Amino acid sequence: MLSIEKYQEEFIKFLEDYQIVKAPQGLYQPIEYILNLGGKRLRPVLTLMTAHIFNSDYKKALNAALSIEVFHNFSLVHDDIMDDAPLRRGHQTVHEKWDINTGILSGDAMLIMAYQLFEHYEADVFQALAKLFSKTALEVCEGQQYDIDFETRNDVTIPEYLKMIEFKTAVLVGAAMKMGAIVAKASTEDQEGIYDFGRYLGIAFQLQDDYLDAFGDPKTFGKQVGGDIIENKKTYLYLKALQFAEASEKKELESLFASTVDDASEKIVGAKAIFQSSGSAEATKSAILEYTNKAFDVLETLDISEDKKALLKAFGHNLMNRTV
Amino acid sequence: MLSIEKYQEEFIKFLEDYQIVKAPQGLYQPIEYILNLGGKRLRPVLTLMTAHIFNSDYKKALNAALSIEVFHNFSLVHDDIMDDAPLRRGHQTVHEKWDINTGILSGDAMLIMAYQLFEHYEADVFQALAKLFSKTALEVCEGQQYDIDFETRNDVTIPEYLKMIEFKTAVLVGAAMKMGAIVAKASTEDQEGIYDFGRYLGIAFQLQDDYLDAFGDPKTFGKQVGGDIIENKKTYLYLKALQFAEASEKKELESLFASTVDDASEKIVGAKAIFQSSGSAEATKSAILEYTNKAFDVLETLDISEDKKALLKAFGHNLMNRTV
Repeated sequence: MLSIEKYQEEFIKFLEDYQIVKAPQGLYQPIEYILNLGGKRLRPVLTLMTAHIFNSDYKKALNAALSIEVFHNFSLVHDDIMDDAPLRRGHQTVHEKWDINTGILSGDAMLIMAYQLFEHYEADVFQALAKLFSKTALEVCEGQQYDIDFETRNDVTIPEYLKMIEFKTAVLVGAAMKMGAIVAKASTEDQEGIYDFGRYLGIAFQLQDDYLDAFGDPKTFGKQVGGDIIENKKTYLYLKALQFAEASEKKELESLFASTVDDASEKIVGAKAIFQSSGSAEATKSAILEYTNKAFDVLETLDISEDKKALLKAFGHNLMNRTV
Repeated sequence: MLSIEKYQEEFIKFLEDYQIVKAPQGLYQPIEYILNLGGKRLRPVLTLMTAHIFNSDYKKALNAALSIEVFHNFSLVHDDIMDDAPLRRGHQTVHEKWDINTGILSGDAMLIMAYQLFEHYEADVFQALAKLFSKTALEVCEGQQYDIDFETRNDVTIPEYLKMIEFKTAVLVGAAMKMGAIVAKASTEDQEGIYDFGRYLGIAFQLQDDYLDAFGDPKTFGKQVGGDIIENKKTYLYLKALQFAEASEKKELESLFASTVDDASEKIVGAKAIFQSSGSAEATKSAILEYTNKAFDVLETLDISEDKKALLKAFGHNLMNRTV
C-alpha cells in the first residue's frame, strides 16, 4: 500500500497527462482551469486505494479515479452557477471568469467526458462502472434539488436532512470506493461493503462539517467559521436545536435565522449558545460518532486482511480527526 | 416495415410508459414537461426504423430511441437557457416556466437518464451505444460552442460553418440511425454506412433550414420566415453571398447584418435580393442537393435489399421535400 500523499501524487501526474484542451478552446479551456484548481483529490485517492486493497494494481483504477474527479468538478461548476458563488478554492469560479453559458456548456462536456473515461475498461467492467456512475450522479442531482427545496421549507425533518447530505455528498464517496473494488473485480459483497463504508463515512464527514462550521478552529477549518449561521442554513445542528430547545429558545433561534445582519458576530454567538444549551451540539457529535462507527462495523464484514481493515480504519480516523 | 406515423405512435406509447416523475418533484416535473411538449420525434423514429431495416424487431430499439430523444431534449433545455429563448414549440421554455437553476439541474439529470436507458442492453451492446452516445454528445457541445464563437467572428469560412452544423445537428441524426443498427447487430460496415447516411442527410436538412428561413413559404415553414436575417445569423446563405457578391453588394449585406431594426421587412427584402443576385441562393440549393446525393450514394454500399434502400431514399426525399 502507498501513503495517501503518494496516491495523490500519482493521481496528479495522471491528471497532468490527461489531454483536455482541443478545439474549440472556448469549451475546453474552462475544463482545464477547474480541474487544475487543486483540492485534496480525496475521491480519486479513495478509488486508487480501494483498488489496491482488493489486490489490484492501483494504476488500473486511474481512469475510474479521474472520472470521479471530473464528475465532482462538473458538479462544482454547475452548483457554483446555481449558488451564484464568485470563488472556488480561492480562485474565480468558471462562470465568473467566463460567463454562465460557458459554465453550463463546459459543465455538460465534463459530465460526458467522465463517462468516456470508462471506455478504457472492457465491456462488463465498463457497464458496471457506468451503471454505478449514473445512479450516483442522479442521486447527486436529487441531493442538490433537496438542498434547494429545503431553503424555502420550514418543516424539514432530520431523516430528510440526512437523506439530502447522503445524496449530495456521501454517495459519491461510496461510489469512488466501489469503483476501485469493481476494477479490482472484488466480490459483490465486498463491493457493497466498501460502498457502505464510504457512504457512512461521507455522512459522518458532512455532519462534522456542519459541526465545525460553528465550533471549529478558525485556524484549521478551511472555511469561514459561522458561515452556515450567517447564511441561515438549516444544518443538522440547527434542526436538532429546534427539536430539543424549549419554546423560548426555539423562538429565539428561529428569529435569529430569519434575519440578515451586517455584523454577524452577535448572531453567531447567539446561535452557538442555543446549539450548546439545547443539547444539539452534543447530539451532533453523537451522530458523527454513530456514522463513523457504522462505517467501521461494515469493515468487519469485508473479506480482506486485518492489516487492510486497520488501514481503512486509520484513514477514517484521520479524516474524522480534523480539529474540533 | 411500418409507416413513419406508426413508428411515431409506438414511440409515443413507450414514452408515456416511461416513469419520469419521482421525488424530488422539483427535479423531475420539468423533465416530464419538456418531454411531453411534442415535436416530430424524428430522431427516435429513425432509430426504430433503422433497427427494423437491419432485421431486428424495432421494439428492441425503443430504449435506445428514447435515449436519443431524452438527450435531444436535454440539449434544448440547456440551449434555450444560453439563447435566452422564452418559447419552445409554442410553450414556455423550462427556465421561463421555472427558473434558470431548474433548467440547469433538470437538464443535467436528463443527460444522465439518457445513459441509464442503455442499461436495458447486454454489456457489449451497452458499451457500443454508450461510446457512440458520448462521442456524439460531446460533438453536439462542440457544435454549440462553435455556434457561440461564430456570433462574434467575422471571418467564418464555409468549411467551418459546415463543421458547425454537422456537429450541432447532423451527428445526432447519424447516431440515432447507427444506434438502431447496433441494436440490430448489423455489420460494422453497415453501421458506419447508415451513420454517414444520417449525417449527410442531417447536413442537407440544416442547409435546407437555412434556405427556407429566407425563401420558405410562411404558411408551411414552422418558424418565422426571415428569422435568421433579423438575428444577423451567419448562415450558409449569408457566407456564400459574402463570398460571391461584388464589393458594393458585400458592403451592403454587411451593413444590413450590422443593424438591429424595429421594422425588419426592408432588411429581409434587401438581404434576400443579395442572396439571389450574388448566386448564393442557387449555391445553397446545390449544396443541399450535393449532401442529399452523398447520403443516397452511401445507401448503395449497404448490405440490405433494394426495397429497403428505396424506403430509406423515400424517407430522405420526403424529409427534403418541405415546401421551398
